[in-house]
Amino acid sequence: MDTPLSPALQALQQRLGYTCTQPELLRRALTHRSWGAAHNERLEFLGDAVLSLAISSLLFERFGESDEGDLTRVRAHLVREDSLHRVALTLGLPEVLRLSEGEARGGGAQRASILADAVEALIGAVFLDGGYDPAHALVQRLFGEVIQATEAESWSKDAKTELQEWLQARRVAVPAYRIVATRGQAHAQTFEVECAVATLGLAECGEGRSRRVAEQEAARRMLDVLKSSDKPG
Amino acid sequence: MDTPLSPALQALQQRLGYTCTQPELLRRALTHRSWGAAHNERLEFLGDAVLSLAISSLLFERFGESDEGDLTRVRAHLVREDSLHRVALTLGLPEVLRLSEGEARGGGAQRASILADAVEALIGAVFLDGGYDPAHALVQRLFGEVIQATEAESWSKDAKTELQEWLQARRVAVPAYRIVATRGQAHAQTFEVECAVATLGLAECGEGRSRRVAEQEAARRMLDVLKSSDKPG
Repeated sequence: MDTPLSPALQALQQRLGYTCTQPELLRRALTHRSWGAAHNERLEFLGDAVLSLAISSLLFERFGESDEGDLTRVRAHLVREDSLHRVALTLGLPEVLRLSEGEARGGGAQRASILADAVEALIGAVFLDGGYDPAHALVQRLFGEVIQATEAESWSKDAKTELQEWLQARRVAVPAYRIVATRGQAHAQTFEVECAVATLGLAECGEGRSRRVAEQEAARRMLDVLKSSDKPG
Repeated sequence: MDTPLSPALQALQQRLGYTCTQPELLRRALTHRSWGAAHNERLEFLGDAVLSLAISSLLFERFGESDEGDLTRVRAHLVREDSLHRVALTLGLPEVLRLSEGEARGGGAQRASILADAVEALIGAVFLDGGYDPAHALVQRLFGEVIQATEAESWSKDAKTELQEWLQARRVAVPAYRIVATRGQAHAQTFEVECAVATLGLAECGEGRSRRVAEQEAARRMLDVLKSSDKPG
């Protein structure tokens, strides 16, 4: 039988704007695997897909003229860990997460990956509890402002140029690109390109229908890695 | 104003088990970019996310005991191009696709990637037309049988072993694994490992929380590439 929610979880439900008919789902969404068997990883699997569809659908409406490539790029940016981490902080998740004592002492409740996973799990819990529509509405409440402020053009900027500028500003040698694989027949080939920054010991791969597209994709991923490791904290 | 659907498209609607209130969406879902500006790529963007959620939700129910990793693996298998290609053939999509003359002469209507994209675009069209629930029901009709026949365990099989056996059966030298990048702090590191089959000129990367997991992931991707290029046609 479900025990009633603590005041902290009732407050969270208010911030979410959704009341779970199954309180146990809410608790589970906030439970890290270090706590015990009833953890949130399956809910996170579901929530990740709900989030992706809701964001896709909101972007589809907001950017009526953008092509699939731009939409995919913007979506990838919005569902990145640092974006979910910010949402988790807005919701006050560090205060309500359930972690093992060891994990909590190690600062687990502040870790971006754990918080981002909990946001996805919460979205999954709402989907399981009430179906797609309330889950979509929740994503709209959590991400609507960011989506409205997004300019699709800013994500279609040339990633190779941006990466080169980023590295030069930090006096790091330019990256090297090389094709690591090509697949498929002549007129439908896929290229896989590696972008390596030797002095940092980093390499990222990108795929695309042309060498140019694959290089841009690899550069974009390298930028994502560099920028996320560049932040304080 | 919408013109009525051709008999071929009416028959397709019957096979889909869904009647579009906006026939133009159905036509657009079946239009390759070679045909003209009103092509299906934005619908495919949306449909890809709808499909992923519907499959995730069906797997979540079907495999109540499977962990997130297994569910992710099974889902990846079900939404692969060859799986969508099979669905497209069941629906008779080669007969109703709209392609440029050049693309049609080149056999475009039989190409797996074009057909797979059209399946996603159709799912996207139903989602736009009727919302999530009819789109979910459509995915259940199209994939339900395959999902019921799926055994999660078969996808958690050790990929490195499977790859080695696959290559040996074809007298190809064993693959080489190497770490191409490590990221993050000590107790939350991510490894990126490359699996290379030198004699075939192929390389695939995998990521994971440990070297072992990353190797398995890279081997799994290599197997996917090898198996999909190994098929006749």
